[in-house]
Amino acid sequence: MKKITTIAGDGVGKEVMEAGLTILESLNLNYDFIKSKAGFECFQNCGKTIPEETIKNAKKSAATLFGAITSTPSEKSPIITLRKELDVFANLRPIKTFEGVNSLFNNIDFLIIRENTEGLYSQIESFEKEEEKNSTKKEKKENNENEKNNKITKTIAKRVITKKASTKICEFAYKTAIKNNRKKITCVHKENVLKKTDGIFKESFYNVVERYSAKCPDIKANDYYIDATAMYLITKPQEFDIIVTSNLYGDILSDEGAGLVGGLGLSPSANIGDKNGLFEPVHGSAPDIEGKGLANPIAMILSISMMLEFLKEDFYAKQINKAVENVLKSKKIATPDLGGNSKTSDITIAIKKELENL
Amino acid sequence: MKKITTIAGDGVGKEVMEAGLTILESLNLNYDFIKSKAGFECFQNCGKTIPEETIKNAKKSAATLFGAITSTPSEKSPIITLRKELDVFANLRPIKTFEGVNSLFNNIDFLIIRENTEGLYSQIESFEKEEEKNSTKKEKKENNENEKNNKITKTIAKRVITKKASTKICEFAYKTAIKNNRKKITCVHKENVLKKTDGIFKESFYNVVERYSAKCPDIKANDYYIDATAMYLITKPQEFDIIVTSNLYGDILSDEGAGLVGGLGLSPSANIGDKNGLFEPVHGSAPDIEGKGLANPIAMILSISMMLEFLKEDFYAKQINKAVENVLKSKKIATPDLGGNSKTSDITIAIKKELENL
Ligand SMILES: CC(C)[C@H](C(=O)O)[C@@H](O)C(=O)O
Ligand SMILES: CC(C)[C@H](C(=O)O)[C@@H](O)C(=O)O
Repeated sequence: MKKITTIAGDGVGKEVMEAGLTILESLNLNYDFIKSKAGFECFQNCGKTIPEETIKNAKKSAATLFGAITSTPSEKSPIITLRKELDVFANLRPIKTFEGVNSLFNNIDFLIIRENTEGLYSQIESFEKEEEKNSTKKEKKENNENEKNNKITKTIAKRVITKKASTKICEFAYKTAIKNNRKKITCVHKENVLKKTDGIFKESFYNVVERYSAKCPDIKANDYYIDATAMYLITKPQEFDIIVTSNLYGDILSDEGAGLVGGLGLSPSANIGDKNGLFEPVHGSAPDIEGKGLANPIAMILSISMMLEFLKEDFYAKQINKAVENVLKSKKIATPDLGGNSKTSDITIAIKKELENL
Repeated sequence: MKKITTIAGDGVGKEVMEAGLTILESLNLNYDFIKSKAGFECFQNCGKTIPEETIKNAKKSAATLFGAITSTPSEKSPIITLRKELDVFANLRPIKTFEGVNSLFNNIDFLIIRENTEGLYSQIESFEKEEEKNSTKKEKKENNENEKNNKITKTIAKRVITKKASTKICEFAYKTAIKNNRKKITCVHKENVLKKTDGIFKESFYNVVERYSAKCPDIKANDYYIDATAMYLITKPQEFDIIVTSNLYGDILSDEGAGLVGGLGLSPSANIGDKNGLFEPVHGSAPDIEGKGLANPIAMILSISMMLEFLKEDFYAKQINKAVENVLKSKKIATPDLGGNSKTSDITIAIKKELENL
């Protein structure tokens, strides 16, 4: 039997995982679930935010489902570690308005494809002390004070962008466009300032465009600066179809996109690699509503749909999307994030029933 | 007589500069204007995007007014050079809804204070070739092909964040809050991933908060992640008062903010240093509408208001704001970006008249 690793994590991560598994199990598919640990509670119990065993389980599974975790200040983020270990180079985040959900816009439907392995997530950071020899007396005194409080006065993060990863993610964007019948790919960068790193990203994009344009002349390609894109998402969100961009820009734009269509409670994501797939709602562990049974399970349930598509269970993936759409359209129930007062379990039961009746 | 350096630049930069100077000159203040060059046209004429003389003029002036420029692919951005040369460490970008302007929200009024000297704008980037010795055969072949087309396979940008600059911008945020009677300062970062660089930024912020909180207990302080902030600007924009953040985050959030309140045609900015001040509309040179006389001059005129405040001409600064507000409120005329069909000169004349009648 195929294996799925599940990592519920902390806070509402556990609650939406329970909801998600209720849906998944109701489909009677042949999967074995391996429950695995990560996050803050896990750290308190075993001293690690993500134990080796969890990574091993994820690697040998057909897919991994992730809830949400509370971050520990001192440790590397387990989700970043997991993305790296599984080499899931593409982070897919659909942004879509749903009928029945109050939002600022209608008819938004685009997909953010975020490079998931490098950029500012390379996690190569260093501390530096200011050189004393060139300092003036005043600065020396300041440095001495810094010395007492905290020696660090300068920090550097390396933003690494390679031609290989940039090309790979742009090719992935084209393959996805072809598969999903999308007609425009927008490359987002800040090449006017980051001439080299974003320069190579943009150049790789247009190299890929050149290669694919003969094969698919109906797919348009253009590019925008990241700052302009942050504005265009508000001024002309319907014009976007696929956005392909580097790691942190994708992180920022996908949260902004979630804000456009009703918030993080509806935002699923897929992390896709050549071998592995990792699926997670975009939201966090939400300590403020933890344990109250009020978390919106839809982001998780839609992430499960993305997982089923990855597992080539297209029929069930589509059924789940349809069931979620119908429940939202009916406007009968909604969790507090969407202005209602239903509980996680109410929504879950409603979606399960809808699935049975489809 | 005090000097003001004016750099019109390219495209609509020239048109809004003309409009701005019409307003400024109508006030009969005692300033000498030094017209200086920068940008694409300047590059074509003299081989430099920003000549030494322009920088010299700006340095010896009481303030510098900048229009907009078209970037040249190969050169460093002149506006970045100018900000660096003038050591204008704080980039202020007010985000405010105006009565009479169609926008998604009402009652938005916050100020983005963007660190303006470091971060990803340090412009320390390098190329690297992949190490051949560790490569597999296949990779070697790939590298050889890269060699033919383009040797570069890996690029790195250094994101530098210092305690000194972080502390300085956070102190500036407090001073601005006190001066402008603002009651909340939100620090924006991504410390969960950039533990060191954004760690030092956040830590510097809370050190400043600690120092100021006794003096001004009515100013609240909090912090958000950059991705969450990009969402909150849409889901709860009225909750923001002052945002203090690093360079690129500020760049992205200020364009997003412009989108919230009617676009870049209304977005002014001030770059402030210990000695110098540089004032510019946030928009670019807009080649698509260049030469048509359709650019919205209001971002420039509001930038002039910020300049006059910097020059301690508070009375005139306020008069300009009032005149712009009245013209917008009247809804009689608007440039195409705001849904009207008035020309740059129509708006300029209307604001000038309004000023005379105030
Ligand atoms: C929790 C955090 C490390 C993560 C990220 O930055 O990728 C989150 O914001 C996301 O978007 O999945
Ligand atoms: C033109 C560009 C270099 C500049 C920046 O990135 O700062 C612009 O986007 C701005 O916001 O002033």
